[in-house]
This record gives sequence, structure tokens and C-alpha cells, in this order.
Amino acid sequence: MFRKISYAASCALAVGIKNKFDTPQSVLLQENSLSKLNLQRCLPKVSAGGTECQLYVGDRIKRAVGFPQLTACCKPLRYKDFIISYDTKNRIPNWVYEHLQYYKFYKDDPCDRRINVCPYNEDSAALGNEKPKFHPDCRIHGYHRADVRDYCDTEYELGLMADPANYPFDAEACAETQVMTNVVPIVPGFSCGPWFDLQCYIREKLVRENKSVYVCSGPLFLPSDNDGKVQMKFDVLGEGEVSVPSHFFKVIIIETHDGNLELESYMMPNAKPEEGEEVKLDDYLTPLCQIEHASGLIFFPEKKVCFTSNNKRRGARLHAL
Amino acid sequence: MFRKISYAASCALAVGIKNKFDTPQSVLLQENSLSKLNLQRCLPKVSAGGTECQLYVGDRIKRAVGFPQLTACCKPLRYKDFIISYDTKNRIPNWVYEHLQYYKFYKDDPCDRRINVCPYNEDSAALGNEKPKFHPDCRIHGYHRADVRDYCDTEYELGLMADPANYPFDAEACAETQVMTNVVPIVPGFSCGPWFDLQCYIREKLVRENKSVYVCSGPLFLPSDNDGKVQMKFDVLGEGEVSVPSHFFKVIIIETHDGNLELESYMMPNAKPEEGEEVKLDDYLTPLCQIEHASGLIFFPEKKVCFTSNNKRRGARLHAL
Repeated sequence: MFRKISYAASCALAVGIKNKFDTPQSVLLQENSLSKLNLQRCLPKVSAGGTECQLYVGDRIKRAVGFPQLTACCKPLRYKDFIISYDTKNRIPNWVYEHLQYYKFYKDDPCDRRINVCPYNEDSAALGNEKPKFHPDCRIHGYHRADVRDYCDTEYELGLMADPANYPFDAEACAETQVMTNVVPIVPGFSCGPWFDLQCYIREKLVRENKSVYVCSGPLFLPSDNDGKVQMKFDVLGEGEVSVPSHFFKVIIIETHDGNLELESYMMPNAKPEEGEEVKLDDYLTPLCQIEHASGLIFFPEKKVCFTSNNKRRGARLHAL
Repeated sequence: MFRKISYAASCALAVGIKNKFDTPQSVLLQENSLSKLNLQRCLPKVSAGGTECQLYVGDRIKRAVGFPQLTACCKPLRYKDFIISYDTKNRIPNWVYEHLQYYKFYKDDPCDRRINVCPYNEDSAALGNEKPKFHPDCRIHGYHRADVRDYCDTEYELGLMADPANYPFDAEACAETQVMTNVVPIVPGFSCGPWFDLQCYIREKLVRENKSVYVCSGPLFLPSDNDGKVQMKFDVLGEGEVSVPSHFFKVIIIETHDGNLELESYMMPNAKPEEGEEVKLDDYLTPLCQIEHASGLIFFPEKKVCFTSNNKRRGARLHAL
């Protein structure tokens, strides 16, 4: 009991004394510490609890109990040929980033003896290559992992963000796209609609005609109007409580042969495409700011670039390399 | 055109050669790189695009375009006496962490001349101290900021996670609790129910009787059963699209005078308490794992501790300091 009172009293005393004589130092503090460490107003050399008093509150918390973490949210998960920022709340990725390079798709050299090993390819499947299996990423805590069983008895299918068809000559990278952190619930038919056209357009046109292409794909949750009340409403699957997004985005950065970066950004609803409907990819072009608002993401936080024409195809030059 | 083909061909060639002679190195790689850097399978000293080939895909992306960021998600925002991890998707905090110390609340020393300056205090309000105003945190991008106007013409009120009553002698810290990153939409009456009792219990019992108390508060979104279909459904406010959570949590770590850490964790619905109902705080005690599952958070990622009895009050000793 004595210990408690003496500790509290000495701290209180320290603050009391400080309040009487603090003018010069507090002015200094005001001038110097605006965006720096916010020092606690304690006198140095207080015997009990002195060191702790001087630490910033965030440092005290970090040292004693650590910060709560959204695993793999800011520090992406590394896979062989793509990276994933995982959303532990919704058990789906925040985003999946790929870097597609011409030489990984196409053979210009007759001496190139690579064969298409991706089991999703028809030729490869005919050769009897087995499809890789969905597997969990054990770096994600069990509380926040999605499981194939979560999708059973639901109306949704497992959709892949990093596309296995992007790794035709690399069985390992291809199999890694089956990791559950790369999977998002999709409405059946979604992956055959404009999303498929967009994937083909990236490979067949953008990768073919440019130095390389960076592709960032991810889910979006857009609210809807419900009797004049704006609400978020989406299905949640299985015991893992996997969220079903309402839309998907692709932000594509094209590295041209003359060394510039150009931008195209798309948004598509998680829905079955209407039959007989002609797909125009341009209809899905979406200003980057709209995707940033809905996703909570800032795509180019380190680049001081003005996106004035990001919704005009190939119009926006991010910056010269 | 020549440049493109020569670049692609040389890269393809490099991979082609690699495939013929890669046995020893690939075995080495398999053994060494399981949880380390996943090296690209490129030969060194390839003339065109050589340096880029050797970089890991994540490093290439980071260097060329940077990672998309959920601002202030992993690196918390620092305020004078609390820290906030902000959820840019929902425009509310993920969590707010406070460190409450006895000497900041109570005066044991007659020489302590501090006066209660918090304008939320009745005595202080009687003295004419003006209530601080809600203000934005400009470190959060405009796309992801909540605004007081988002709450206008809604059925919700602005609820504060870091509690101004925790800073009775510190006008600055008290005013900082009015920052919009600390605000969550609450159902009117919520803050007068068991949430208020919990706040009082922390100050009047836990802080009084222990060395210090760490308090982590935040919102939760729990799905509900809708005609046999599990769904997430919540209101979204204003142009800023601020999400209204269904529940709130408080994870409390008590630093005792004998140097141990103990844990109590609570969850409460974002609802008006029923009138005449007697509040029993124990009814809201919730296993930490349940809060971790719903929030997507791991609270003590750096501590290797087994939480065997976290729902028994004061039962779980995190670890000796």
C-alpha cells in the first residue's frame, strides 16, 4: 500500500513542481515537438516510475503489451510471383499485386524449350497434369483463415485474384495461386464475363505491346440504397465468416518501352454477365479516386503525382521512370 | 521493335539455359529459401533487364509503383495521450489504445495544484470552459475521412473511443479525443448504458487499485442470421460513407503492483440499454478469441502466451513483467 501511494505521490509531485516552473521548457516543447515525439510532461530523475513517465504513450503500450495487429495488412505476404495484402476481417485479400513480363508468356526464340505446365491450360490438362489443390496459408492465424469448406453449400464459387493463366511456364507460381489468401467468393459466371475479357486484354494486348505490366486486383464493398437508407449488405460464408464483395477492381500500370508508366483502372460488379450482351471493357473504366474511396486504399502513396485523367484510357502518365 | 524482341529473347534464353543446368542450385534454393527471400530463377549477368530479373517481384513492384496503403492501419496515429489505428474502409478506428495511470486521475498530495480542466466535467463546464470542437485529422486522406456532417440527419450520435473523462487535468489530451479518427457512430443512449459503467469501473476500481491500466477500445461488425442466410448488414452514413458497427469491445490489461499483467475483455452491442435493467458488467465479459475472430485483430502478436482463462475475470495472467 505504501509503495502505491509513494509512487503516485512522487509522480503527482513531479507534475506539481513542473507546473510552477515550466514556462521556458514548455515553450521549447511547443516549438520542437509538433510532429515529433510528444514528450510526457514529467521531470527527469523522478525516482519511482521515472523512466516510464518519460516514454511516449505509444512506446509504453508497445513495450508492455504490443500493438494489436491486422496480420499481412501493411506488410504483404510474399509468394513466388505475386504478393498479397490480406484482410483479416473479411478473410479475403485487400489486394493482390502481379508484375507481368513479356518473356514469361511468349517465346520468340526457337531455342526456348519451356513447355506450358499450367494445369489450367487445356494442352497441359490433356497431358494429365493434375490441378493444384486449394491450400491454406499458415502465416495467417486460424481465427482469420478462410477454408474451402466455408464455400460448401453456398451459391458462390472460389474466385482467384492472381490468375494462374499468368504463369504458363511456372508450375510453382501457378500452384501458388490456389492459396486461400488469393481466393474471393464470386457469383458463378462472373469469371467468364467481362472479368475474363479484362484478363485476356491484359495478357494479349498490354503485356504483348509493352515492356511490362503491373496489375493490382482486389474486392470492393459498395453500399446500396435500401428504402432511402444507405446500407452495406453482403453475405458471409461458413464458420470462417468469409465476406462476399459486391464488386472487384483492377488497377493496371503499364510500363511502356519508352520508359513511361500509364494507368488504367476498372471496376466490375460481382455478378453473372447477361447472356448475349456484348462486353465493352471501356464501360468498366472507373476513376482511380472512386476505387480508392471504396477500398480504403491509396494506390500510390509514395508518388507525388496528380491523377487528372485517370479514367481516360492510357491517358494518365504516372511519371517518367 | 527490335529493342522489345531482343529484351524478351535474352530473358527467355536466360531461362532456357537455366532450365538445363539448374539442378545443384535449385536444390540449394529449396533448402535455403523456404521462409526467406524467394529468388527469381534468372541467371546473373543477363545483359537486358538483368538487374530487374534478379529482384523479387515484391521489390520490383515497390520500387516501380509502391504498395497500396491502408493509411494508419499498422502504424498507429500518435496523439498526446493515446494512439489510434484507423480503418480507412469504414472511416472509424480499428482500435484506440490508452494507458491510464493513477497519478493522472487522483491527487494524494495537498501540494498538487492541478485543477480539472476537462470541459466535460460538470465543475469545469460551470466555470465556462468551452467544449472542444470535433476536428478532422489531416494525416488521413480526404477520401477516407469522416466528417461531422456525415452524422447530420441520421439516427446516430458521435461516440468517442478514447474517453475525455480519462484526461481530467490535461486540456490538450482532452480536446484531442474530439478528433474524428476517435469517433464512431453510436445508437443514442449507448454511452449511458453498460459502456458508461465499464468506463467508470476502469477508472474508479482498476486504475485506483493497480499500478496502471492499458485499455484498447474499438468497434466490431458481427453478422446476423437473415432467413437462414448469414449476412452482414449495417448502415452507412453520409457522403463519407461512415460504417455503423454492431458491437464494441474493450480489451483491458491491468498492470498490478506486484508487476503482473492481467486481462479482462468485454463486448457490448451498439444498442440502447433497456430501461430499469440492472447492469451486470460480468454479463458482457467475452473471450478474447471471440473478439479477435470478429475484429480481424491479434491483440498480443509478440507475446507467446496461452490464453486459457481469458473470460474469467482477473484470471488470466498474461506474463510476468
